[in-house]
Amino acid sequence: MTDEGRSIFLEDIPLEEARIRLYSALQAAGRDQPLPGEPVELTEAVGRITAEPVWAKLSSPHYHAAAMDGYAVQAAATFSAAETCPLRLTVGSEAYPVNTGDLLPIDADAVIMIEEVQQPTPDVIEIRASVAPYQHVRQMGEDIVASELALPVNHRIRPVDLGGAAGCGYARLTVRRKPFAVIIPTGSELVPAGQTPQPGQIIEYNSLVLRGQVIEAGGRVEVTAIVPDDVTALRAALDEALARQPDLILLLSGSSAGSRDFAASAIRSRGTLLAHGIAVRPGHPVVIGIIQGVPVIGVPGYPVSAALTGELLVLPLLARWLGAPSPMDDAHRVRAILTRKLVSPIGDDDFVRVTLGKVGDRLLASPLSRGAGVITSLVRADGLAHIPRFSEGVDAGQAVEVRLYRRLDVIERTVVISGSHDPLLDLLGQFMTERHPGCRLTSAAVGSLGGLIALRRGEAHLAGVHLLDPDTGNYNLPAVDKYLPGEVVRIVTFAHREQGFMVARGNPLAIQSVADLPRVRYVNRQRGAGTRVLLDYALRRAGIDPALISGYAREENTHLAVAAAVASGVADCGMGVRQAALTMGVDFISVGWERYDFVIPAVHLDHPGVGYLLETLEDPAFRQALAAQPGYDAREMGTVQRRS
Amino acid sequence: MTDEGRSIFLEDIPLEEARIRLYSALQAAGRDQPLPGEPVELTEAVGRITAEPVWAKLSSPHYHAAAMDGYAVQAAATFSAAETCPLRLTVGSEAYPVNTGDLLPIDADAVIMIEEVQQPTPDVIEIRASVAPYQHVRQMGEDIVASELALPVNHRIRPVDLGGAAGCGYARLTVRRKPFAVIIPTGSELVPAGQTPQPGQIIEYNSLVLRGQVIEAGGRVEVTAIVPDDVTALRAALDEALARQPDLILLLSGSSAGSRDFAASAIRSRGTLLAHGIAVRPGHPVVIGIIQGVPVIGVPGYPVSAALTGELLVLPLLARWLGAPSPMDDAHRVRAILTRKLVSPIGDDDFVRVTLGKVGDRLLASPLSRGAGVITSLVRADGLAHIPRFSEGVDAGQAVEVRLYRRLDVIERTVVISGSHDPLLDLLGQFMTERHPGCRLTSAAVGSLGGLIALRRGEAHLAGVHLLDPDTGNYNLPAVDKYLPGEVVRIVTFAHREQGFMVARGNPLAIQSVADLPRVRYVNRQRGAGTRVLLDYALRRAGIDPALISGYAREENTHLAVAAAVASGVADCGMGVRQAALTMGVDFISVGWERYDFVIPAVHLDHPGVGYLLETLEDPAFRQALAAQPGYDAREMGTVQRRS
Repeated sequence: MTDEGRSIFLEDIPLEEARIRLYSALQAAGRDQPLPGEPVELTEAVGRITAEPVWAKLSSPHYHAAAMDGYAVQAAATFSAAETCPLRLTVGSEAYPVNTGDLLPIDADAVIMIEEVQQPTPDVIEIRASVAPYQHVRQMGEDIVASELALPVNHRIRPVDLGGAAGCGYARLTVRRKPFAVIIPTGSELVPAGQTPQPGQIIEYNSLVLRGQVIEAGGRVEVTAIVPDDVTALRAALDEALARQPDLILLLSGSSAGSRDFAASAIRSRGTLLAHGIAVRPGHPVVIGIIQGVPVIGVPGYPVSAALTGELLVLPLLARWLGAPSPMDDAHRVRAILTRKLVSPIGDDDFVRVTLGKVGDRLLASPLSRGAGVITSLVRADGLAHIPRFSEGVDAGQAVEVRLYRRLDVIERTVVISGSHDPLLDLLGQFMTERHPGCRLTSAAVGSLGGLIALRRGEAHLAGVHLLDPDTGNYNLPAVDKYLPGEVVRIVTFAHREQGFMVARGNPLAIQSVADLPRVRYVNRQRGAGTRVLLDYALRRAGIDPALISGYAREENTHLAVAAAVASGVADCGMGVRQAALTMGVDFISVGWERYDFVIPAVHLDHPGVGYLLETLEDPAFRQALAAQPGYDAREMGTVQRRS
Repeated sequence: MTDEGRSIFLEDIPLEEARIRLYSALQAAGRDQPLPGEPVELTEAVGRITAEPVWAKLSSPHYHAAAMDGYAVQAAATFSAAETCPLRLTVGSEAYPVNTGDLLPIDADAVIMIEEVQQPTPDVIEIRASVAPYQHVRQMGEDIVASELALPVNHRIRPVDLGGAAGCGYARLTVRRKPFAVIIPTGSELVPAGQTPQPGQIIEYNSLVLRGQVIEAGGRVEVTAIVPDDVTALRAALDEALARQPDLILLLSGSSAGSRDFAASAIRSRGTLLAHGIAVRPGHPVVIGIIQGVPVIGVPGYPVSAALTGELLVLPLLARWLGAPSPMDDAHRVRAILTRKLVSPIGDDDFVRVTLGKVGDRLLASPLSRGAGVITSLVRADGLAHIPRFSEGVDAGQAVEVRLYRRLDVIERTVVISGSHDPLLDLLGQFMTERHPGCRLTSAAVGSLGGLIALRRGEAHLAGVHLLDPDTGNYNLPAVDKYLPGEVVRIVTFAHREQGFMVARGNPLAIQSVADLPRVRYVNRQRGAGTRVLLDYALRRAGIDPALISGYAREENTHLAVAAAVASGVADCGMGVRQAALTMGVDFISVGWERYDFVIPAVHLDHPGVGYLLETLEDPAFRQALAAQPGYDAREMGTVQRRS
């Protein structure tokens, strides 16, 4: 291999360059055009895409038809009829009984409704008004005239289109053949979904996600068994896949760096390697090749990278084969204001999952976890922000372009909660959605103080806070006065919660109070979290210097993350709510009860979703469900602590 | 039956009242709640709706995992390492080789990437920088912590959700059972799609449309054979349908008025009739009943009424059973400005199909045909305008509420052509869509003059005109000066077309010129149509009084409609383009060639779709396709007649 040949594999190439290499190779193989059509029955056609324009074969109606039940007449023969001068017509020669849909007799050009006719004898009708030509007649071709365009090419067929096509003479339509993909999951560490994984094992679900993407886009898929990290096995799997004559092979790599090299080397041994690493975040280790004219995409193992590779490379390819607009070009894009600064490597196209919410008249984008392993960030995402190459990032308050995953009007109706993380916000959201389908709640865990600051910046409809005032021992009201001075807010209680120390089962280190913390490995909550304030308050009262506590600087953002750290043994103790301790199976040393309130600026009280939320707090079923959770108390739920 | 009992059947009831009766009856039968869940494998779950919240069973990762290939170490042990002071660690006791995804050894809390390590001997690594705790470690629960909400209830499952669910321990999910509908098409006049109908026969496709709607909404369907209009047969069909234990029966009536009475009487003979006529346009003759707890909806035979009954009554019911937001509540609604006055009966909820386009900064709604038989009006519709009860209509220029059938951003990119109808505008649109998938063209046939007026009102991006100036014999430029004085426009030629008289095959009445028209039955084009101007010009030159021509007042809006009138024998002669005559198989007496231009206000030249349209006029393949049509000539296609 020449140096030049090697250099393309030494560094990531830009996404656009990778696409050009792929489509050039496809063009050379004669595979870059929309797939040929295949006939399908109308009953199977919804969701398929027309492979040719549908020109009407028949007019509809294909004859002049009565549009009412009544009598067909010649309009000119009725001109003398009037209220004062009834006209009689002979049935069978001047007036013909017709039902809706009947062919109009050759010398008739209008229909009189049965209700407007009197019939003195069976052979005679009497009318008291003249009729205009073509009254109550559906003229031939009223709906569509033979030869007119019924459906364009490259059109996704909807239910009403079946009527349009059938009405003008079709029983089947020619639609694009479904692109056929074979998916090969690889990785010795993988176990199938549903199997309980051992440490070091990973549940294989990238094949599920990519299979779902391909099928939803209009393709069909076969998924092979999991192939271990072994070049011989991988080559054999590629050969088997090729034998099925697919349009596309997706080679799902494991998560280790070695795995992509396996993929690259297997592709090189069978065909041509086109790209080995793409300058996209997350997703770098994408491999692209072509074997016997069949494109092979080596999909990285990290789940977010895998799903985004599907979106950025696989779906546009399927769209091209289907003659559909590329999902990238076709996507609904909006500009939204970033709530947090995003730093981005200058050489990469950076795709950041965001939640979106409309607060007041501003559409706001809040970045979710950027970890490539955090699939839940894609589940929760409302859109994908794009930080293009050659940008070093975007400051908070600046606008970014976001490709929508959700309809904008749904986003605009969403209630945005910021502030302290409480595990039961999910329960609240679930009750709201159940009572008001289509109404959503999104929450950002930024700590109590962060929630108040988000309100001040106009970035949330309400904040969840549990902030102890060290001077008075009161909850929340002093903090609101301090951080939102002059702001008119309503403060409504969500719940009382029991806080305490989470310790290993059996409390082997006999932790009882803050006095014990200097001798153990602690796991803390982030600055601004109400639980952190509570700890600092307790330390100050006990006169303990935080610097003495090992792990004081290690910050987690949620109760459950703290509990998980204790459960896994990497920390001996952390503070949090009882429910989190119970969930993770660790012991709990109670410190006391605190009040968790919602702070709602008056301007947002009219938001329909905020109304539903407050309504849910009055719902006895929800109160009962919350009170049934250990460490929660609904005694003051819905109580207004301050009326705006 | 008492008078009171009968009266509810004597007049149409409001839609809301019909819904209330239906849901009350369902509630009494215990069938108004979301359907129970059923387990499905993840591979089958995309598009299904969760029947219960999905709480994480496992944390993901379920252990502290290496996030890079390299060496696992204890961060605290590396603090002394620096560029000038390399640190050596013993492999196996101080540093452990790990691949991405591997379990972190119990005393390690960080990973050093393989690239940052030197290895003087196999047992020793050397590092030149300290590492922070948790560097390159995916902490247990980083993605999701056991017990957290992975997916809410009533959530439509997407491909990424499969990853989220599998990652936290699920191999299957509990989703709503699919509502099961039996569809019974009835009507002696019906023939199945694909069969060539005789006069008086109608192609049965309402079952296709409603079946498609139900399946797309997430239900499943069985369609029975067509049942003739016979009460005994209908009752037997109902009994058979009930035996299949459906959630819903859709009884599709024929189009005659008698047919709904059959449906009503069949329902009454087996259960309870709840409504017999609903005050909705189009759609009046809807029948609703309940038999053994199973709702039966009698769907009217006219195709638009049938499809709208599906939207207004069937889909909301399915949504309720699926726990999904009602498509009526959930729909994306916009306000758009009407381009034509709509008169509406005061007692009805009136639903009008509209096309939508954004011209300048105004979203405009143009009403399509209101005929209940015109299924193509639904095929072409971009949305459904609602004129509520108690309104007599809406004036042009006023805003109406429109439920979108298409994404708003797609509508906003659409090119709106107004003016003269030319059959080849469809061909142009087809080429544009093929070259630029996702780019659409909509056209409104309002005649050449109507097109110029639409431009003046800012209701179209361009107008198609062929207006002969009677004084100069010139085309289009004089008319533009007259009707758009002072407006800066570009005028670009589309094609030359051959105009002439369309007459019955063999020209039995020997029509040669306008001089022959007073002795035949004529079919005219509407006022403002270029073809009408051409006729009037010829009549005036020949000194013929239009009042002498029978059928002069009968106006059609398109060439094909005129040709169809001649082909069906209801008229002897009409004027139009050669291509329309050929299409409908009638003879053509040439009158001459005319120039058909596009008139484009300068302000719209920057519109991307207008750019694509002008680009298509330069496309040799399109020119060739147009020139291949009889009566068309592309010699000046794309020629700029006036540069703005």
